[in-house]
Amino acid sequence: MKALVYQGPGKKALDERPMPQLVAPTDAVVSVTKTTICGTDLHILKGDVPTCVPPRILGHEGVGIIERIGSGVTQFRPGDHVLISCITSCGKCEYCRRAMYSHCATGGWILGNAIEGTQAEYVRIPHADTSLYPVPPGTDEEALVMLSDILPTGFECGVLNGKVQPGSTVAIVGSGPIGLAALLTAQFYSPARIIMVDINENRLAVAKRFGATDTVHVAAGEASSQVMKLTNGRGVDTAIEAVGVPATFILCEDIVAPGGVIANVGVHGVKADLHLERLWSQNISITTRLVDTVTTPLLLKTVQSGKIDPKRLITHRFTLDHILDAYETFADAANTGALKVLIAP
Amino acid sequence: MKALVYQGPGKKALDERPMPQLVAPTDAVVSVTKTTICGTDLHILKGDVPTCVPPRILGHEGVGIIERIGSGVTQFRPGDHVLISCITSCGKCEYCRRAMYSHCATGGWILGNAIEGTQAEYVRIPHADTSLYPVPPGTDEEALVMLSDILPTGFECGVLNGKVQPGSTVAIVGSGPIGLAALLTAQFYSPARIIMVDINENRLAVAKRFGATDTVHVAAGEASSQVMKLTNGRGVDTAIEAVGVPATFILCEDIVAPGGVIANVGVHGVKADLHLERLWSQNISITTRLVDTVTTPLLLKTVQSGKIDPKRLITHRFTLDHILDAYETFADAANTGALKVLIAP
Amino acid sequence: MKALVYQGPGKKALDERPMPQLVAPTDAVVSVTKTTICGTDLHILKGDVPTCVPPRILGHEGVGIIERIGSGVTQFRPGDHVLISCITSCGKCEYCRRAMYSHCATGGWILGNAIEGTQAEYVRIPHADTSLYPVPPGTDEEALVMLSDILPTGFECGVLNGKVQPGSTVAIVGSGPIGLAALLTAQFYSPARIIMVDINENRLAVAKRFGATDTVHVAAGEASSQVMKLTNGRGVDTAIEAVGVPATFILCEDIVAPGGVIANVGVHGVKADLHLERLWSQNISITTRLVDTVTTPLLLKTVQSGKIDPKRLITHRFTLDHILDAYETFADAANTGALKVLIAP
Amino acid sequence: MKALVYQGPGKKALDERPMPQLVAPTDAVVSVTKTTICGTDLHILKGDVPTCVPPRILGHEGVGIIERIGSGVTQFRPGDHVLISCITSCGKCEYCRRAMYSHCATGGWILGNAIEGTQAEYVRIPHADTSLYPVPPGTDEEALVMLSDILPTGFECGVLNGKVQPGSTVAIVGSGPIGLAALLTAQFYSPARIIMVDINENRLAVAKRFGATDTVHVAAGEASSQVMKLTNGRGVDTAIEAVGVPATFILCEDIVAPGGVIANVGVHGVKADLHLERLWSQNISITTRLVDTVTTPLLLKTVQSGKIDPKRLITHRFTLDHILDAYETFADAANTGALKVLIAP
Repeated sequence: MKALVYQGPGKKALDERPMPQLVAPTDAVVSVTKTTICGTDLHILKGDVPTCVPPRILGHEGVGIIERIGSGVTQFRPGDHVLISCITSCGKCEYCRRAMYSHCATGGWILGNAIEGTQAEYVRIPHADTSLYPVPPGTDEEALVMLSDILPTGFECGVLNGKVQPGSTVAIVGSGPIGLAALLTAQFYSPARIIMVDINENRLAVAKRFGATDTVHVAAGEASSQVMKLTNGRGVDTAIEAVGVPATFILCEDIVAPGGVIANVGVHGVKADLHLERLWSQNISITTRLVDTVTTPLLLKTVQSGKIDPKRLITHRFTLDHILDAYETFADAANTGALKVLIAP
Repeated sequence: MKALVYQGPGKKALDERPMPQLVAPTDAVVSVTKTTICGTDLHILKGDVPTCVPPRILGHEGVGIIERIGSGVTQFRPGDHVLISCITSCGKCEYCRRAMYSHCATGGWILGNAIEGTQAEYVRIPHADTSLYPVPPGTDEEALVMLSDILPTGFECGVLNGKVQPGSTVAIVGSGPIGLAALLTAQFYSPARIIMVDINENRLAVAKRFGATDTVHVAAGEASSQVMKLTNGRGVDTAIEAVGVPATFILCEDIVAPGGVIANVGVHGVKADLHLERLWSQNISITTRLVDTVTTPLLLKTVQSGKIDPKRLITHRFTLDHILDAYETFADAANTGALKVLIAP
Repeated sequence: MKALVYQGPGKKALDERPMPQLVAPTDAVVSVTKTTICGTDLHILKGDVPTCVPPRILGHEGVGIIERIGSGVTQFRPGDHVLISCITSCGKCEYCRRAMYSHCATGGWILGNAIEGTQAEYVRIPHADTSLYPVPPGTDEEALVMLSDILPTGFECGVLNGKVQPGSTVAIVGSGPIGLAALLTAQFYSPARIIMVDINENRLAVAKRFGATDTVHVAAGEASSQVMKLTNGRGVDTAIEAVGVPATFILCEDIVAPGGVIANVGVHGVKADLHLERLWSQNISITTRLVDTVTTPLLLKTVQSGKIDPKRLITHRFTLDHILDAYETFADAANTGALKVLIAP
Repeated sequence: MKALVYQGPGKKALDERPMPQLVAPTDAVVSVTKTTICGTDLHILKGDVPTCVPPRILGHEGVGIIERIGSGVTQFRPGDHVLISCITSCGKCEYCRRAMYSHCATGGWILGNAIEGTQAEYVRIPHADTSLYPVPPGTDEEALVMLSDILPTGFECGVLNGKVQPGSTVAIVGSGPIGLAALLTAQFYSPARIIMVDINENRLAVAKRFGATDTVHVAAGEASSQVMKLTNGRGVDTAIEAVGVPATFILCEDIVAPGGVIANVGVHGVKADLHLERLWSQNISITTRLVDTVTTPLLLKTVQSGKIDPKRLITHRFTLDHILDAYETFADAANTGALKVLIAP
């Protein structure tokens, strides 16, 4: 079968690879009908993710049709239309029983990382019963690909951890795909203000269309003073960090109001300064989280009922044959305006 | 009247000062029957607290008898026996209505800081109705002095923010008075393990007597590896920082388990490194808090019902005439073994 | 001044009454610019509310301008534009400190009940600092009258107690003003389904316009089986009782799913059967609540930011001179289609 | 093998039955080393549980050694020492994923009910990976039998649902084994008062030894007025119903304070009156729950760390050969003083 294979730092190819086989009785093999590329895939390609050893088929998002199931799979049958969660969960270990699927003893984020991923014609899904979700009849497949990772990430790590509330004030630092996913799902809770911060005019314009009440362009002056001015010097109840560098995290420290939350979503490569000399008395919380995808059933219901249209995140579409172009478009988002690129066979 | 007066960095004296007067109709003047010294008083004396301008009567803890009340005071009468909260709360502003008394628009921590304090024969208490608490008949006055600040601080900032639970594992970094207050109140929730960390053998011995299940002496090797060994490599559910320096905060980062909480109690003077490159995916929370004293009614009930004996924190007793000796004893805790020193007229 | 006075069961009149005076230093006298009639006022007129002794000026909702303040009022000044909360709160007693203003030791629901109310040119508001809210500049006064009682009641007793969540399924039994207030505020949380139940076609049509996803007309067959069919036999996550009679409460028992909540909003005059022989094992909660109006600041922000338009509840407008007509229109809602009737000087 | 078999209303026998076999790959067969009798077993024997069709081996509590496992069992091996949960949980269905194991689509309370139970030499456990718990080395086996059902029931349905807090006031209506289990686990949270109510002097004396601060004997006058007097007319924060008849439920309605919780634990056979005409404005919650046993890991830690000694509930010990005597002793608790009777091979 065809698959996008990571071949070491800076190297990838669309290769012919053997069909995946069932390994454990709880496995399923899924024929991938839609997949996409994540910012994390670009990190892997830079050689930044040591758990991902080449050659490795990338990809941890997708929708498909079940091809084969192991003898221990009880919730699905071949032919079932399924959403693939980016997080593999056994449902049995201590962490899974505490709904921290991200830290599953034999799962977590392994797809396209420690095991072969979804940017291929077929993929093996371990712990299928607890890592796949039935696609509700009539739901748009493209919308659902956004539920593999980006939507639950923005929602769980940003919006839920950030305790977004009706009438509250939210700042989302970073208006890339993940910041926009937080923006879309923050609106589930009717905050009064959502201030989007970015260095890219284009992304801020998208943010406005997606429901931001205010935008802050970093070039227009110090971002923190712009946010403080917008909030009458009060700061924000929720600051969502959706970039992953020290400067944006510190911006969140600067703009969070007493009693507020900094919800980190960004993947960080280095430490950041924590200004405890000021924050110790500010009654704030800082949260971190690798997405658990525990809200996938909830998100499916919001998509089905039209409360959210995640398809709005899709800017480009490619066939698997042209996945290298898809990578190029996605990696050059500043020029292409790419948010999420959809890949279908 | 006699009062302990801060006279500028490094300088203090037991002075004669005028009796406090009612200023606002919501004020009360309280005759102080018991007070104590807090670590923060030592910070002020070093000149580290810019809001405290000399000359200033120090002290924000105490128990006393109401001497006079303003016309707007409705909950108390002269002669009432009262506990003085270290936090002044108007009960009306946005923060008070959200139970964040520490950030009260016209209150917060002002006693012995922005206004005259309790280390005197009398003290004026603004917003008396919402800043004083009736002493239940028959309750030991000495025990209650511990409820002005140290017990709610350990409980709210450490134990409640740290989400201590039955069966959980807690580490308290710092076994001084505030760490011990966290230790005593953590036991309200029956955690399975409470590991106390300190550099002082003596304090660890006290911690054992106060209910610690394990102690870690820093000199015995790297504290983090000792804690990890005690928890079978898992780390702790709750790490309470009760010192206020970068090294102890970073120790908390090293020992917190995935899904755990770092509850900061310490007063920090400088920033600390936040190792987001490791913690971003660990599903942890970090909390900060200036005590709100919202749990004072709860704590009063636990003292009354014998669930806790805060008097155990008192190691020395002085009269107000000898308060300079009390300061000396308290400041030299390493040698004197002082925890809390009680001062009575 | 003119005022609507309850004169005993079945009797009311538009009377001339003396101007209210300041009684306590914490009082304010407010010139009422808008008020409205509540279903509870009709209960009083029937003689069903023993705490309301004639002659009594009715009314506990309104917006106005502060005319005079007592010496203890610090948050407002004459001339301030204010929203009057239906709940008077001292901010000092045990219940107020626990945010249960409805049970305030010297307040609670007393306006137009134990003391003179708002259906008059002027009204005295006790505990003004903690019972009035500043009207944000530029906010529509008519919309704000809905925030005195009906909106916080629907929101706190129905939506918050009912734990409405994104993607969840809600049934609201009763589509009168209070059920519609729950319907409007439930949408803050983006539930997937809101099923409105009523016996009045007209009200169900209004409910559809206000955002209901489904309506159940009681005449169309047993309501419980209709709701169960709509939810594929599963029942609802939240059942909000907004009528106040045994039959509607029991309907909620019939349609709540395992793990769900029955949030009672209705004012009940008699007991209801609780089918514990079936419900004991269903992991449900039943909640009751007299509105605390603790969410008034939150609701003000949602109105200001356009997340909700409470004016939609207003169907008729009258001057105070014609308040008897207003009562007639309101009492005959079945024929007039009245929801909330607005009364202005 | 030997087993206690229900043979229809009023009939039971110690019979010879075939060894259980593995049916599904996720099954385990466990050799039962300790079991006990539950009040529910007596209900079955009366013919009150229609899901339990004779002939059926009774029993849903126990500890044992794994004899054989199916090919799909990954968390356990033959020879492992395990605690059997009274609730069978697949870990995969919607309810299990929401931690409501009691409503598991293919599990829930089925042992000794819809399938053969634990009062036998061997028992088949479906969904073994998620329905058994490893016994920590060195833990007393007898203590652990109390963790199959009675302790998590008292804790989850009574204490957790009842939101017992430090300093709070609790009443437990019913001092049988389940009420005493609630009493023991309520102390995890250090309430100030625990008032036990019963009609049996002996059980109240046991309650005192187990930590009750007050006892109320029903014969001594109306129980509600006794409780109200003990709480200075205020009522209790938490009322735990641990009997299962209308009178005791209504007692809970009478004694719950505004803002409090009635946590139902009892198994009810008929409806009860819910006095909404009084309670609608009291801001209370009523909760029901079939135990989910989600707290089993937490409870294991509290036993291991000595925070609780569940063995105190065991009053009598029998061998399986004498299980009929055990039933007699347990059923005649009023005379025998039996709480839990332990049965070993």
